[in-house]
Amino acid sequence: MPEPSPLPPSDLLANLYGERYRICPTGPARVSLVLSHQREIDLIELESLCDAVGWSRRPLRRVRKALQHSLLRVGLWRHDPRLPRLVGFARCTGDGVVEATVWDVAVHPLYQGVGLGKQMMDYVIEQLRHQGVDRVSLFADPDVVGFYEAQGWELEPLQRRCAFWYSP
Amino acid sequence: MPEPSPLPPSDLLANLYGERYRICPTGPARVSLVLSHQREIDLIELESLCDAVGWSRRPLRRVRKALQHSLLRVGLWRHDPRLPRLVGFARCTGDGVVEATVWDVAVHPLYQGVGLGKQMMDYVIEQLRHQGVDRVSLFADPDVVGFYEAQGWELEPLQRRCAFWYSP
Repeated sequence: MPEPSPLPPSDLLANLYGERYRICPTGPARVSLVLSHQREIDLIELESLCDAVGWSRRPLRRVRKALQHSLLRVGLWRHDPRLPRLVGFARCTGDGVVEATVWDVAVHPLYQGVGLGKQMMDYVIEQLRHQGVDRVSLFADPDVVGFYEAQGWELEPLQRRCAFWYSP
Repeated sequence: MPEPSPLPPSDLLANLYGERYRICPTGPARVSLVLSHQREIDLIELESLCDAVGWSRRPLRRVRKALQHSLLRVGLWRHDPRLPRLVGFARCTGDGVVEATVWDVAVHPLYQGVGLGKQMMDYVIEQLRHQGVDRVSLFADPDVVGFYEAQGWELEPLQRRCAFWYSP
């Protein structure tokens, strides 16, 4: 993992990341990773992150609209006082009351394997609870089913099956 | 199924149901069932419908907010020129671009078994396509998996599993 930058005082962090930021403890080193649902996501940076995790590209215009209409957008930032870098992302759609659904959970490969995905999901759930959401759902790819189960997600409760319809 | 009312001219229907209503053909009788995503849903009527299909009640205040923040709310109405009655319902959350998720699909037991659920889902998909949504998802209970499969929904594509987190 790249060498972290030292953290400035909390008021400067709040300027960069919004009041409800969260510092991620990532071991004995100086902590330099910050979760935020208030700092704006740069679309080009998000596209680079998606490239890094191997996702297919979507038109930026559509991504912009999708983010605007999401219930929650969470970024994981490698702290830098001038230019924080986006190294993780997740977003939710939903009604903000009864249902929320998590989409597009990504952590940059350089930052994987140190518990950041779990910290990001904890942060997502906490923001959704803050909104008062009853229930959160997601569709887990086979390789991450264990990741979500280990965090207390209930797999196919009531034997529900997921189904998709794709635009022709 | 209760005796239908005769249908008035289309401009009167548009007044009642909005411009994008859809009349449901339900056999040789006079047609009296109308789909609409524009006519407002009465919360008390919706609660009665949910009671009729055996769903547990939710606080009306929360249901109101959930409907307000939904991407799409579709009602199936037994036509009556003075007071259409709500006999079916479905709603979607989502970003309106990349993702939409269908929730709370209900048809009153008196109106089941004549293809109205399928017509309602077709109408839902059509409205979402009109918005330009790429992909629609849902969580199917075991007893309705066949219903969705028969309509071309792809079950657990890429072996995705559904997972839920419930508010403690």
